[in-house]
Amino acid sequence: MKTKKFAIILSGSGVFDGAEIHESTLTMLSIAKAGGTYQCFAPDKEQAHVINHLTGEEMPEKRNVLIEAARIARGNIKPLSEFSLDDFDMIVFPGGFGVAKNFCSFAFEGPDCEVDQEVETVVKSAVEKGLPIGALCISPVLMARILPAVDVTIGEDQETAEAISTMGGSHYITDHGEVIIDEKYKLVTTPCYMLDATIQQIAEGTDNIVKELIYLSENP
Amino acid sequence: MKTKKFAIILSGSGVFDGAEIHESTLTMLSIAKAGGTYQCFAPDKEQAHVINHLTGEEMPEKRNVLIEAARIARGNIKPLSEFSLDDFDMIVFPGGFGVAKNFCSFAFEGPDCEVDQEVETVVKSAVEKGLPIGALCISPVLMARILPAVDVTIGEDQETAEAISTMGGSHYITDHGEVIIDEKYKLVTTPCYMLDATIQQIAEGTDNIVKELIYLSENP
Repeated sequence: MKTKKFAIILSGSGVFDGAEIHESTLTMLSIAKAGGTYQCFAPDKEQAHVINHLTGEEMPEKRNVLIEAARIARGNIKPLSEFSLDDFDMIVFPGGFGVAKNFCSFAFEGPDCEVDQEVETVVKSAVEKGLPIGALCISPVLMARILPAVDVTIGEDQETAEAISTMGGSHYITDHGEVIIDEKYKLVTTPCYMLDATIQQIAEGTDNIVKELIYLSENP
Repeated sequence: MKTKKFAIILSGSGVFDGAEIHESTLTMLSIAKAGGTYQCFAPDKEQAHVINHLTGEEMPEKRNVLIEAARIARGNIKPLSEFSLDDFDMIVFPGGFGVAKNFCSFAFEGPDCEVDQEVETVVKSAVEKGLPIGALCISPVLMARILPAVDVTIGEDQETAEAISTMGGSHYITDHGEVIIDEKYKLVTTPCYMLDATIQQIAEGTDNIVKELIYLSENP
């Protein structure tokens, strides 16, 4: 079997304004355990805002998505503008509010949200080329906004599930570690911290997403 | 067996100016897998500086160790001033330059470095009470500065090993995932990213540290 090459798209560093750190780290671990390799990417743009993760309040600062995401990637990260479909077998979007704040405006505007142009192009062109995509936690709302009539899960949160319906998608209730596969888009989703989860349950979710992505990439 | 309660002491969020994110996250995962619980702590103080993790250069900003560490802890973190020995069975210090910049000044001043007073008190009183301590990556230099004639490993980096000797400690060369146990202090160390490691090797290191800490706590 050829080594599978994963692109991981990060939306910052920290659950409340960026990429969820445990989901991102455990995605990397799951890929390594499965014998794959990964390269991190993030858009070189300003974060929607900065949240004090101790208090939950907004801080009067500006931070850059790529520069903060580099913390999770230990500096080994590239701007999303340098991402090329030809270099990868699949793509993973970890969760965190960064996806709903920096990749689209879902956290502020709900189903009518706008999507970052660069992120939208990556998702659409990956689907067109038949590259499998994994989306964790809140990331399925981004997919529901970009891809018509998509099948996804974000766990069981009713409000978010309804928003997915409003955007034209179908939501399926799942428990910890369970995945929903949309075969037409080769899209795999799992709830992770959209449920009240332990870190072990997150590891189970990332293991399962990686396993399904590898399966989809080998069975076109 | 009683559930083992771990305190995790974080020095920020990001390898170059704070706690190493993978080591911190995988410590949590190892504890959960071993059936333990954890609570994160960090000192409520300003970081020594802020490093752009994309370029490695210093940024003209100020950040707080506790507020940034809260990103790794998903908000569930307490100031180190609220740490009480009576509530825990053992303590873990993940690595990252934050240990050598925010917990002591080793990164700037080498073996003559000063140690944060709050951190020093926690380490000394834990040793006095017989609580096992785990120290990953660069954290053993902090222990060598606080505890006389300590046995530790930071892998194989010669300059750091020599600095440990200068501070009165003994350094033992180790490979990925290997641990050194100082029985008199109940101190367990492992190199993690002080070696050129994969994320799987980090997970092996945190698994082994947690296993040894549990063993030490049950065999006083």
